[in-house]
Amino acid sequence: MLTGIACAALLSVMALSGRAASQETLPSWNDTAAKQRIVDFVRATTTEGGNGYVAPQDRIAVFDNDGTLWTEQPFYIQLGFMLDRVKALAPEHPEWKTKEPFKSILAGDLKGIAKGGEKGIVEMGMATHAGMTTDEFNKIVTDWFTTAKHPKTGKLYTDMTYLPMRELLDYLRANGFATYIVSGGGVEFMRPVTEKLYGIPPQQVVGSTITTQYAIVDDVPVLRRLPKIDFIDDGPGKPAGINKFIGRRPIFVAGNSDGDYEMLRWVTAAEGHGFAMIVHHTDADREYAYDRQSPFGKLDKALDEATRRNWLVVDMKADWKKVFAFEP
Amino acid sequence: MLTGIACAALLSVMALSGRAASQETLPSWNDTAAKQRIVDFVRATTTEGGNGYVAPQDRIAVFDNDGTLWTEQPFYIQLGFMLDRVKALAPEHPEWKTKEPFKSILAGDLKGIAKGGEKGIVEMGMATHAGMTTDEFNKIVTDWFTTAKHPKTGKLYTDMTYLPMRELLDYLRANGFATYIVSGGGVEFMRPVTEKLYGIPPQQVVGSTITTQYAIVDDVPVLRRLPKIDFIDDGPGKPAGINKFIGRRPIFVAGNSDGDYEMLRWVTAAEGHGFAMIVHHTDADREYAYDRQSPFGKLDKALDEATRRNWLVVDMKADWKKVFAFEP
Repeated sequence: MLTGIACAALLSVMALSGRAASQETLPSWNDTAAKQRIVDFVRATTTEGGNGYVAPQDRIAVFDNDGTLWTEQPFYIQLGFMLDRVKALAPEHPEWKTKEPFKSILAGDLKGIAKGGEKGIVEMGMATHAGMTTDEFNKIVTDWFTTAKHPKTGKLYTDMTYLPMRELLDYLRANGFATYIVSGGGVEFMRPVTEKLYGIPPQQVVGSTITTQYAIVDDVPVLRRLPKIDFIDDGPGKPAGINKFIGRRPIFVAGNSDGDYEMLRWVTAAEGHGFAMIVHHTDADREYAYDRQSPFGKLDKALDEATRRNWLVVDMKADWKKVFAFEP
Repeated sequence: MLTGIACAALLSVMALSGRAASQETLPSWNDTAAKQRIVDFVRATTTEGGNGYVAPQDRIAVFDNDGTLWTEQPFYIQLGFMLDRVKALAPEHPEWKTKEPFKSILAGDLKGIAKGGEKGIVEMGMATHAGMTTDEFNKIVTDWFTTAKHPKTGKLYTDMTYLPMRELLDYLRANGFATYIVSGGGVEFMRPVTEKLYGIPPQQVVGSTITTQYAIVDDVPVLRRLPKIDFIDDGPGKPAGINKFIGRRPIFVAGNSDGDYEMLRWVTAAEGHGFAMIVHHTDADREYAYDRQSPFGKLDKALDEATRRNWLVVDMKADWKKVFAFEP
């Protein structure tokens, strides 16, 4: 009979060879330089004794969400949620008919809404989503995601995630990385679905927050969501959010817009081997093509600096075999 | 030859029996009802098909730090750090001689300092610890802990952790729990040492925060610590902190003071099987004896309600074989 140690060794070998044989790495990525750079980075990170080796506890990877893991066009999914909530609640709020931003929302005037920028959108989110407990909000969001559909594809929003990015998350985790979302979106808007969509549990989601207040209702403690912004996790807020929530510097970052610029800088300024990638939306057929002029996910400064800073720019059209899992 | 599955099954059995045989559970705990309640809870939580079973991803355990994992007498360790920092920086700040709270600190007047309460202490901490980058602060704290000693025992502060609680952390982790600190202390004061002391990595430390600001210095991004409180993770702030940082409700909580009261309520209000324990400081010989009257770690309301709410009150003197690892 095999001893425990021999048996364990055997199992390890079997597991390793099984992994190599049965799983193609990043199957929805074309065999381009982009994929090669990612694979090379992961290989260097995990090769003990090598120059680029990073201990498992320091393998932290952070991902923007809107436009990096799921689609952000024709508007942020959280804005879609907001539009639906405003419409649902409008009968109770006759004053919204003449009050911005509700007026634009009720009129379906996207340009009017976009004028407020990301901060304005977050503020609108707070204004429309406060006043309930955290448990109640979780249920509202969870329920909404079971039926809400993307305006162009007609697919559920939860189907609008990028398959190559989900594969990348899996691939990093299989190589000992802890994967985090670091998004300008509301943290309690994302958490109900991130585990199912991305394999990322609630405690690994960093995002914008509103202030909550502890209260006792019928002898039961609750947290009330107040209409007060606590933290905006966007732009220079992203490194601050990473520091606050994670407390160590990631070695891998993926983003797609100038809202990720400071986070890209932060990760690649780390001593050693910080790796940064930008998802460049170049595919008007399968998804959308946009960058410098887009009201959502504007990519301008970060694109200008990508080459000089050795940030990988992923060309969605050229580098991805598939964008969405539902494609034929 | 054994097949992979049979081999894995064999290994599992060997691992389980090995664990039972080679490791005594919670060896620094006496065989009292307290230990039995903890063991019963963990057994119920991990017994598949049983009434109290909890899936691994929901096994979140939160621990207060001061007075729960390490000593908080004769004053909070972070206050010890503050006193040392004020003394070190005093030559650059002649105005501190006449300005509170610095005057009390420089005069060694603990009662004067304690008057400000925990919030005052956190504020003093912010005032004395801001103005540098996060990396610089990390180094200051890390260096301080290598030499700073407890005023009564003369041991390093890092030796002033409770051995039975460290065993409890290990025991919970061995049973699939994720262990978090949820402390009123500054998150960046704790993170440099929590992994070494407790096996708790930075991203699992929830605490009070000050605002940080992203800036570029010599083309390198930094985060500056501003003298501005961002969040106080104490009292009703603890459930808010848990919700913000962890995003799911823990099923196990350990605290020792009224500052943990709301967190104790929050965890035990969960549907199912929330377990709460209070460390009651009853041992003036090996550590300290204090509760209702203590300026640090006051335990009054939570002690009154413990029986009615079925919170386990651990009697340090009766329930712990050892308090500190350095005891003979």
